[in-house]
Amino acid sequence: MRSLDKFFYPESVAVIGASTDQGKAGYQILKNLIELDFDGSVYPVNPKEDEIFGKKCYKSLKDIDTNVDLILVSVPAPVVPSIFMEAKERGDVKTAVILASGFSETKIPERIKLEEEVIRIAKEADIRIIGPNCVGVMNTENRLDTTFAAGIKKVPGSMSLISQSGSLGAAIAAFSVNQAVPIGFAKWAHVGNQCDIKVLDILKYYKDDEQTKSIAMYMEGIDNAREFMEVAREITEEKPIVILKVGRSKLGSGAAASHTGSLAGTDALYDAAFEQAGILRVNTIEELLDTAKAISMQPLPKGNRIAVLTEAGGPGIISVDEIGLGDMAVLAKFSDKTIERLREVLPPMAIIDHTDGYIDMSAAADEKQHAEALKIVLEDDGVDGVVHLSVPPTFLIPKEMGEMSAQAIKKYNKPVTVCYLAGEWVQEGREALEKEGIPTFDMPDRAAKAMINMVKRRLMLDAIKDNKIEETSAVDTQNINSIIQDAKEKNISLTEIESRKILSQYGIDFGEFEFADNVEDAICKAEKLGYPIVMKIMSPDIIHKSDAGGVVVNIKNENELKDAYIKIMENAKKYSEDARINGVLLTPMLLDGMEMIIGALRDQQFGPCVMVGFGGIFVEVLKDVSFKIAPVSYSEAKDMVEKLQLYPMLKGIRGQAKLDVDAVVDTIVKVSRLITENEDIKEIDINPIRVYEKGIAALDGRVII
Amino acid sequence: MRSLDKFFYPESVAVIGASTDQGKAGYQILKNLIELDFDGSVYPVNPKEDEIFGKKCYKSLKDIDTNVDLILVSVPAPVVPSIFMEAKERGDVKTAVILASGFSETKIPERIKLEEEVIRIAKEADIRIIGPNCVGVMNTENRLDTTFAAGIKKVPGSMSLISQSGSLGAAIAAFSVNQAVPIGFAKWAHVGNQCDIKVLDILKYYKDDEQTKSIAMYMEGIDNAREFMEVAREITEEKPIVILKVGRSKLGSGAAASHTGSLAGTDALYDAAFEQAGILRVNTIEELLDTAKAISMQPLPKGNRIAVLTEAGGPGIISVDEIGLGDMAVLAKFSDKTIERLREVLPPMAIIDHTDGYIDMSAAADEKQHAEALKIVLEDDGVDGVVHLSVPPTFLIPKEMGEMSAQAIKKYNKPVTVCYLAGEWVQEGREALEKEGIPTFDMPDRAAKAMINMVKRRLMLDAIKDNKIEETSAVDTQNINSIIQDAKEKNISLTEIESRKILSQYGIDFGEFEFADNVEDAICKAEKLGYPIVMKIMSPDIIHKSDAGGVVVNIKNENELKDAYIKIMENAKKYSEDARINGVLLTPMLLDGMEMIIGALRDQQFGPCVMVGFGGIFVEVLKDVSFKIAPVSYSEAKDMVEKLQLYPMLKGIRGQAKLDVDAVVDTIVKVSRLITENEDIKEIDINPIRVYEKGIAALDGRVII
Repeated sequence: MRSLDKFFYPESVAVIGASTDQGKAGYQILKNLIELDFDGSVYPVNPKEDEIFGKKCYKSLKDIDTNVDLILVSVPAPVVPSIFMEAKERGDVKTAVILASGFSETKIPERIKLEEEVIRIAKEADIRIIGPNCVGVMNTENRLDTTFAAGIKKVPGSMSLISQSGSLGAAIAAFSVNQAVPIGFAKWAHVGNQCDIKVLDILKYYKDDEQTKSIAMYMEGIDNAREFMEVAREITEEKPIVILKVGRSKLGSGAAASHTGSLAGTDALYDAAFEQAGILRVNTIEELLDTAKAISMQPLPKGNRIAVLTEAGGPGIISVDEIGLGDMAVLAKFSDKTIERLREVLPPMAIIDHTDGYIDMSAAADEKQHAEALKIVLEDDGVDGVVHLSVPPTFLIPKEMGEMSAQAIKKYNKPVTVCYLAGEWVQEGREALEKEGIPTFDMPDRAAKAMINMVKRRLMLDAIKDNKIEETSAVDTQNINSIIQDAKEKNISLTEIESRKILSQYGIDFGEFEFADNVEDAICKAEKLGYPIVMKIMSPDIIHKSDAGGVVVNIKNENELKDAYIKIMENAKKYSEDARINGVLLTPMLLDGMEMIIGALRDQQFGPCVMVGFGGIFVEVLKDVSFKIAPVSYSEAKDMVEKLQLYPMLKGIRGQAKLDVDAVVDTIVKVSRLITENEDIKEIDINPIRVYEKGIAALDGRVII
Repeated sequence: MRSLDKFFYPESVAVIGASTDQGKAGYQILKNLIELDFDGSVYPVNPKEDEIFGKKCYKSLKDIDTNVDLILVSVPAPVVPSIFMEAKERGDVKTAVILASGFSETKIPERIKLEEEVIRIAKEADIRIIGPNCVGVMNTENRLDTTFAAGIKKVPGSMSLISQSGSLGAAIAAFSVNQAVPIGFAKWAHVGNQCDIKVLDILKYYKDDEQTKSIAMYMEGIDNAREFMEVAREITEEKPIVILKVGRSKLGSGAAASHTGSLAGTDALYDAAFEQAGILRVNTIEELLDTAKAISMQPLPKGNRIAVLTEAGGPGIISVDEIGLGDMAVLAKFSDKTIERLREVLPPMAIIDHTDGYIDMSAAADEKQHAEALKIVLEDDGVDGVVHLSVPPTFLIPKEMGEMSAQAIKKYNKPVTVCYLAGEWVQEGREALEKEGIPTFDMPDRAAKAMINMVKRRLMLDAIKDNKIEETSAVDTQNINSIIQDAKEKNISLTEIESRKILSQYGIDFGEFEFADNVEDAICKAEKLGYPIVMKIMSPDIIHKSDAGGVVVNIKNENELKDAYIKIMENAKKYSEDARINGVLLTPMLLDGMEMIIGALRDQQFGPCVMVGFGGIFVEVLKDVSFKIAPVSYSEAKDMVEKLQLYPMLKGIRGQAKLDVDAVVDTIVKVSRLITENEDIKEIDINPIRVYEKGIAALDGRVII
């Protein structure tokens, strides 16, 4: 038996705090279990009642004389430890859902202790806990419902849900059932404070659950995001994970933090992590359900070439817009044979080759023509999936249409999403399709979006398959460690020279540079490099060199160099009387090429992350940067660069030269390794880094420990 | 009586082509009129039948012995003229809906003639026509339905619909009725080929219709867009117009063109025109209905400061995300008094001041607390509207909650959108709110979006009110006309010098420039301007000067100038043996400042339009441009500049100087006037135009006639 089976498949459940008072959770919990016909024994427990809902009510847990698998605890928080003592004495109780709140989520010290006490007793008694401050689980297979949500019908489906909000999770489950054609669900969980069982445990349980074909989640933010991502990555290839993660806006993430007490993290990092783990991120409850539905019913497309087959222009264009505005799917190109066959089969007024991949069959198409056209389009090797739309005129019979189309679609192992758009009138047509496993949707944009999300899943899985994190080539770790340990011991930050040494160990190219600790030395080194040069202050106490007046660019000769040296030293003194000055860094003045920025950071939730962007004003005005969780493979690093809005500038536009994208990609990979392999490093900032037709040169580098 | 009353309020309707064959439109039309209980007389006409649906069937229109107001024509196209002859003979028929297709939309010459013949007879008989190739009108007031859509329940509402697709329009009407709480509609129209009554006529009719409080439209593209925009602008202040315009993507506009035969136009121009006319553009059917519903039920917000009042974190954050990701609405800032009062009233665990403008009342809030909190928030002068969300726990009574909240909301003249999120369980709560005029929505993002669209309407109306197109200051029109007429007569395009002369008449600043027609002259003029200079070929036969090698920049001295002159003349000859060479244009070489582009075009649908963008690579890579329909006011031109993604660059970032935005705005206004006032001008292109701290300088200008 798997670890959480006793939660989802208990044979007997005791409701501690069962109540006749409609205003109490203990009333609704019991009502749900009875009315929804839970397939097991239910024992109400309340010292003040003899009978509830016609069932014998026990004074105490001790009084139940048969086996109890699961207890649902809905009593005031201070009473909970005593309940667990009773359960411990019994010995048979192995699982508990604590619905009661008033524990660690209050952040009150004695309440945190109360939770710890419950955990202690539970451990001694070998009882696993979901909660506290949660509503627990649902299972449509045995019609179990530990929540106090208003009677959610237990319609079995192949999607299982995890929610970080009990109420919203319940609303999602309710919506999954209250559809024109119910989607239903397999299992459902809300784990509240996670004092024992965590979101991750539920995820792992769903991984191996036979009823669960896809996993849908409502997420506000998690504190073990990296582990979550790693577990998800193991699951997503076999079972799709679709997540509605809120906190997309700055405002939203503020509100999220307040709600769960968990950190919402940086939204851009969630985006990156989800993609790297193959998780589909969606933005609305409707998209969550639509996507989970499509993906659990249909095969994945082999590629991104989608055909739109419509019976009416309006919905057709709405779907095409949805495809055209995104960058995931493209309209398919039909073969000549397909066009020819469609022309034979469809009414003369059908529009077949105006827009490639788009067919408007016209309102004259009958049931058979719908099915025939589907067949022809699905047989085209250039088509990976079909969005099919119809507003059946009243002289068609939707049920027959649905049946004939379902038979046609079933023969091919390609995904089809359908929208019959005429309210109740098409209900039987939708049911006929769904019966055969073809998903239908309320709106044309939603049918298209569900298909696009399937394409996205295909592209993510392909990218993950291509992914290979390369071993780091030999680096002098001892050298790096000694630089870092030395600075740590002295409690100082690393200078640019030290940073450059560390970065160079990972093969990051800084071009030529020289260090000088007096003006004569500087003159000599400058000659060696060749004018014009750049001079920068080197001091462990001056991190922001420009702000301190510690940088002079475009020094053209010895005289200018002398002036610059004096000025920099003066400025440094002005900036900080006590600053320890090591000397100056000299580099050739490089002007051409494109200015970029490559960086890394150690995030609280995700650990090491890497970033690339266009430098200067572009970072400021456009925020044209992209992130991934480190380490990254070459293909992931390439994807980061290609995601930049100004990426076309690297490819050489308007007759300008093509720049060395490979060198940028290579540097991203190296930086991602550096931060991953050296836990003392908090941040890396290579800004600017100049990209040339051949090669790159980092002009400044900071490693922050 | 208003012009279209006989279409929407006929006392008697004859169905020509009424049928007992379920596969025929004439069957469903009659069925709809009878089953939906049309408030008027209905006469089936079919030579082959005696009785249909228990009603006497007339052999011919002639045989009906009482008055006939409206005929619905559902017979094969070639028969239609004879029907109109009969109607003409009767004399009482004043309106006709021709449902039959097979006319001009087929683009077959004899079918176009057939339509013309029908129009001719109708004119003689003084009969107005809707159609052909349409489904006509619906009216919930008298339960009229001329369509063959499957029985759409006639639930009266305050929104009226216009659709450019019969089937999608019918689907929208059906959805407006099949809601948790029906929205319903007042009137509905689909005008097909528009051989007589046009979309614009319907719009004007709705303008004066008392039942119509808001207008919702499905649009694919219109051919008299400018007139449409002008009519809409007169309506929108009093009655909101919400339009679902498809063809947002390049792909989509291709598909749209194929469907209606009308030109979809440039989507960016539609965006601009809608905003200038105060039309709300939406992207989905759901958003169309949600927005029309909210806007016809609630007062407009006075500003854009929105509070989110939620009982559960999840939906709250979803709404806040919707607000935070857009640029229309902002979260309100509560007064200290509001915070204090909320603290008194709400449960202790409520989150009141974590994120300003956001309140999570917590699941402990009861019915009364919902209403109290609404009251307090609505009384805050810093709040213009409220998005209110609740997932009522089972111990609350949704109906009471809805009633109490409605009473609280009704007292204040501020908009509130509500989402109760718990499926059927909250149905009575939603109904209680809607009964009192408070709109409810299925999803938290949709409640927020509806509010955001109301804010958008407020901002658009305010902008229109501020709008004042200034009179053009005196320009030498005769000079401009003579330049243009001269070129037209010679059938040549304007040179840059001529273009500069025209643009200068409108006060566009080109800085210094000189013309020279031989090398000595050039040397002399260059000295006058001061080196470095730019030299460009002037020829009516060379429009793309750079492509022809006709431009040399950064000429530093007399020798370089001589070389440049020779090179340019050689290149011009190479480019075109017969090119007429007028000479060269000399300008100072200007390098600093920011490169922008200002242009104008005469669009087929919208007429004169004006554009601004950032020049060089920005236009190419970012497509960072914005359009408006010309002429524009100063405030509209300012809005164009502020809409640019790189606009912050003009405001001076990272210590750089603030550039002269006013001069850019002024130039846009001037260019918009130039194209508006001179119908011979097809295009204007000032590229680049350099923007400085003070002033601007156009470096190149083309006027295309």
